[in-house]
Amino acid sequence: MQFLSDNAASVHPRVWEAMRAADAPDAPYDNDALSRSLDERFGDLFGRPAHVVWAATGTAANCLALATMVPPHGGVICHREAHIETDECGAPGFYTHGAKLILAGGAGAKLTPHSVGAALAAIRGDVHQVQAHALSLTQVSEYGLAYSPAEIAALVELARASGLALHVDGARFANAVAFLGCSPAAACGMVDALSFGCVKNGAMNAEAIVFFGAAEADLARLRRKRAGHLQSKGRFLAAQILAMLEGDLWLANARAANAAAQHIGGAAAGRLLHPVEANEVFLISTAAERQALRDQGFTFYDWGSDAARLIASWNSNPDHVEALARAIAAL
Amino acid sequence: MQFLSDNAASVHPRVWEAMRAADAPDAPYDNDALSRSLDERFGDLFGRPAHVVWAATGTAANCLALATMVPPHGGVICHREAHIETDECGAPGFYTHGAKLILAGGAGAKLTPHSVGAALAAIRGDVHQVQAHALSLTQVSEYGLAYSPAEIAALVELARASGLALHVDGARFANAVAFLGCSPAAACGMVDALSFGCVKNGAMNAEAIVFFGAAEADLARLRRKRAGHLQSKGRFLAAQILAMLEGDLWLANARAANAAAQHIGGAAAGRLLHPVEANEVFLISTAAERQALRDQGFTFYDWGSDAARLIASWNSNPDHVEALARAIAAL
Amino acid sequence: MQFLSDNAASVHPRVWEAMRAADAPDAPYDNDALSRSLDERFGDLFGRPAHVVWAATGTAANCLALATMVPPHGGVICHREAHIETDECGAPGFYTHGAKLILAGGAGAKLTPHSVGAALAAIRGDVHQVQAHALSLTQVSEYGLAYSPAEIAALVELARASGLALHVDGARFANAVAFLGCSPAAACGMVDALSFGCVKNGAMNAEAIVFFGAAEADLARLRRKRAGHLQSKGRFLAAQILAMLEGDLWLANARAANAAAQHIGGAAAGRLLHPVEANEVFLISTAAERQALRDQGFTFYDWGSDAARLIASWNSNPDHVEALARAIAAL
Amino acid sequence: MQFLSDNAASVHPRVWEAMRAADAPDAPYDNDALSRSLDERFGDLFGRPAHVVWAATGTAANCLALATMVPPHGGVICHREAHIETDECGAPGFYTHGAKLILAGGAGAKLTPHSVGAALAAIRGDVHQVQAHALSLTQVSEYGLAYSPAEIAALVELARASGLALHVDGARFANAVAFLGCSPAAACGMVDALSFGCVKNGAMNAEAIVFFGAAEADLARLRRKRAGHLQSKGRFLAAQILAMLEGDLWLANARAANAAAQHIGGAAAGRLLHPVEANEVFLISTAAERQALRDQGFTFYDWGSDAARLIASWNSNPDHVEALARAIAAL
Repeated sequence: MQFLSDNAASVHPRVWEAMRAADAPDAPYDNDALSRSLDERFGDLFGRPAHVVWAATGTAANCLALATMVPPHGGVICHREAHIETDECGAPGFYTHGAKLILAGGAGAKLTPHSVGAALAAIRGDVHQVQAHALSLTQVSEYGLAYSPAEIAALVELARASGLALHVDGARFANAVAFLGCSPAAACGMVDALSFGCVKNGAMNAEAIVFFGAAEADLARLRRKRAGHLQSKGRFLAAQILAMLEGDLWLANARAANAAAQHIGGAAAGRLLHPVEANEVFLISTAAERQALRDQGFTFYDWGSDAARLIASWNSNPDHVEALARAIAAL
Repeated sequence: MQFLSDNAASVHPRVWEAMRAADAPDAPYDNDALSRSLDERFGDLFGRPAHVVWAATGTAANCLALATMVPPHGGVICHREAHIETDECGAPGFYTHGAKLILAGGAGAKLTPHSVGAALAAIRGDVHQVQAHALSLTQVSEYGLAYSPAEIAALVELARASGLALHVDGARFANAVAFLGCSPAAACGMVDALSFGCVKNGAMNAEAIVFFGAAEADLARLRRKRAGHLQSKGRFLAAQILAMLEGDLWLANARAANAAAQHIGGAAAGRLLHPVEANEVFLISTAAERQALRDQGFTFYDWGSDAARLIASWNSNPDHVEALARAIAAL
Repeated sequence: MQFLSDNAASVHPRVWEAMRAADAPDAPYDNDALSRSLDERFGDLFGRPAHVVWAATGTAANCLALATMVPPHGGVICHREAHIETDECGAPGFYTHGAKLILAGGAGAKLTPHSVGAALAAIRGDVHQVQAHALSLTQVSEYGLAYSPAEIAALVELARASGLALHVDGARFANAVAFLGCSPAAACGMVDALSFGCVKNGAMNAEAIVFFGAAEADLARLRRKRAGHLQSKGRFLAAQILAMLEGDLWLANARAANAAAQHIGGAAAGRLLHPVEANEVFLISTAAERQALRDQGFTFYDWGSDAARLIASWNSNPDHVEALARAIAAL
Repeated sequence: MQFLSDNAASVHPRVWEAMRAADAPDAPYDNDALSRSLDERFGDLFGRPAHVVWAATGTAANCLALATMVPPHGGVICHREAHIETDECGAPGFYTHGAKLILAGGAGAKLTPHSVGAALAAIRGDVHQVQAHALSLTQVSEYGLAYSPAEIAALVELARASGLALHVDGARFANAVAFLGCSPAAACGMVDALSFGCVKNGAMNAEAIVFFGAAEADLARLRRKRAGHLQSKGRFLAAQILAMLEGDLWLANARAANAAAQHIGGAAAGRLLHPVEANEVFLISTAAERQALRDQGFTFYDWGSDAARLIASWNSNPDHVEALARAIAAL
């Protein structure tokens, strides 16, 4: 009964179907009909012109986006617990040629205008200090918390007023939209680029980098080739992304994962390190309690010494979810 | 009737089957059973311990391999028509942090001990000039020519004597082995790393970087993550590679492509820019002749102003191949 | 009456003399007799074989040293207020090709085994997190505090036990040795590389990077050329460094600066943000008090909103120092 | 009797005087009065607004200039014998984060519209090939040949028409202007940035990067700090550069060096590999002849196996020059 992560789950049957349907040869790279249809499809979804570049991983998506926003001598403000800071083996430094991640705080791994403002205020405007060029936030955050449209809007406003480009790491953007019940546009605000995650939500190995400026997308296409991420049979990546959008599969999958997490979280009243908003449950627990859960067949990661991280997937087995909820309630 | 390239061909049915069979969740990244079996499988194939790292593209495979061999202030000797020099948008410079490609000549895009020796001899051994640290050659070459085992051995010997690490870009390594009829080990020699190509030969988006030293593979795993090439559902890449090896599908596919090219080339006596050894035919032709072929429904690229490049795939339609052969004979 | 910094002070007469004496042409770059004498001279000073590479600035010295210690995918542990983190415009990221500075705490900008240990403990040993390869500390720290030989030894021991290379930023190393009254070797411990600062202590534009391993120095020489820091008339840099060592001018100058700071600090009892150990005084003061000092003709930097930073130089005018001490006492 | 190079010659007395005069403390970095006067001084010299950034070496000057012109995924067209290609240990790759030098030909290491045009024509305009963003030429060339104003203008026109930024490596720009007898502006054309060399012409360690756009200069200032080239006592670099301009010392020195080379070249009729235009003489000679010259006390470099390279300096001893001319005539 697996609650380790959503990142290795099975591929959704409709994604498989779309990939098989894409098997007939088409133009190579991203010149195929599927890849060429992405701009319009995402433009419809976000209600403004979109320029979409696919990539195989979230790390590549984040870093290709950031590389369009910050020069090597610049910096990107992000949360000190952001994935780009903690779990990408320095990939942002690689893709941006050494730009600095300027770390800011905020509860639940969410930035606030105050924390971003403090980071900005600490920078002298001279050549000795790295100047901020971009802001990157994660929707939902690394603790599964969603920024509300108002919170996003406030950060967008601050970024604009400060001359910063804005990136959203949306590895679990679907879970955010499913939770917030708002439009995709409201969930990310007037961002410059969004890493629209699919892999954790039923795809195999395709993420969409949604740019809202054509020049940035063109730059990312060059950098993607240069990074070895331009696949010759790119139609298979486009097919996955389109399948996720078709009939709002992305939202259906996210709702299923969120609901599973809600069910688990509902059994853990008083034990939650963070509220359950998306598909992640951080369960305050002793080592003995975690061992008890493991003895019952549940797999998950420890989160420090006092908590467990339990993640539901689009296809979490309802019986496993129910069993986990009962086991937690019985602790 | 498509002879543009082998890089966008359909995926072989057995590759599809292997991918579907890999759908059940397993450990993420390359901790799954399939990925963990690659070392042994390639060790058997090459008759010495192998350490295998998958990547989605040939560019990533080449550059991750090179990055283990050359420091940023060093250089890699390669042919001036090598793919890494001409068609990777500077990816080697990105992955190696600015190392230089030191260009050498040789007929048919094949390096020779003489051409490599001349490149080495031109380098003063001081801090002002970039020192060579590695040699990279392409098997088969960018013109579809195979290095014989003796030619490979001579280059390996020179590399060793000169303190150079050795990389083989094997985007079409299968076509080389199929042509040479030798062992895989003989076709690449005592190389340090081989980009073992699958995508052009029936896979979807998986290449194997075969290292023959454990330390280099470990380094490549770090660099792969840092480059955003560590997929969380890596089992689908391993599955593709294993399917290619299973029952020597890789050789069967390459033989089919080579045979198709031989058939085409056989109709082009006196018109061949290079001998046909693998699956590429370079047809000396006038613009009018190429137009005549296109008018009959054949698609292909011009090669300069005086030739056409025609590439056969693992699944080139025999009727199309026959038709092309006849059309060429009739020019 | 200037107490802004020691970094723009005049050049010591004996440095001028040495430079003039070096005017006769010699071999270019670092092949001249003066440059070639540095290894022996520093070997004597530190009591073990030294391999010395000059560079024009402290930033270059620090970063060339770090680049020999950490791969692009690795990290360097340093204090969060270290010069390499806060005041080099990302130069470490440039020279190391994107390696991460892993920030640790400690009072007075001094690292401790506890703070370094905590930074190390927070790193998972997998490919997703940047692994630490080196430790860099500043002697004296950015607040003018000296690590004692015992403190240095404890950090060296921890670094060794953790497999970290060790770098000391000694922009004001002379001030540390002058304060500690110990040997240079004891003041930096069994470090791998020391940036031995001269510019803030009476030289014009020459720092010595003292390596204790020949391979690292050779690597730094290549990287120095590649960074455009290999001057063709390098004899003028070597001359400056040798003049600083001659007759222990470096210590005499540092003692003078330290004594001036002590005099100023002695007038500021109860107002010191940090003890005065080297040539820096951090004076707790109101904006009005700082204005009062400025009105009397003293120049210095504010340090946040509640303090002033006052720095003495090798040639601080004794009358100015006395005047400043009196002015502070009168606040 | 030294004819090895002009790069390690003595410092001109007027440069020394200017440096001594700059010893009084001023604002650090490039905030001092001397540094701040450079823009106006060079603006006068070139007849249009100039934005000047000093650096200690020609390699740094060239690479800081190029880094403002070309993105990491782009390329710079230069001659295959250009200093940036052959003698900077890959520094352009370091400063530009891996941009490619795209090599072109031309007699005497001089580019021509034809050779540049051929290089441009060979680049497909897709993401697979590195696109050219800049053109760099050396005035005088690495063989001491000057581009005439008309030649420069033709290359400028081509660069503009092709959307390329233009850089001139003027390590020996003074020798070019002295030879051509034209204005400095005519000798470099409407270039974007000029590395105005001083070190080979009587300075110690200061070159001027003359930008003709303010934005590029601002960018270079950030990159200079990041590269550790922002010296805190920058006034000593500015003083050197200003001394070179004062009373046209730069031209006087270059004329002296050129005249010496002319005298030597005049004795070598029929033996010149290239015409003598600046201060370099390439003397066709046998190994025995070169040995004969060395036996008479002349030092110089071999140039391949069939020539010697003899370089005159601003202060070449007239007796030595005369002796060399006689020795050559007597061969």
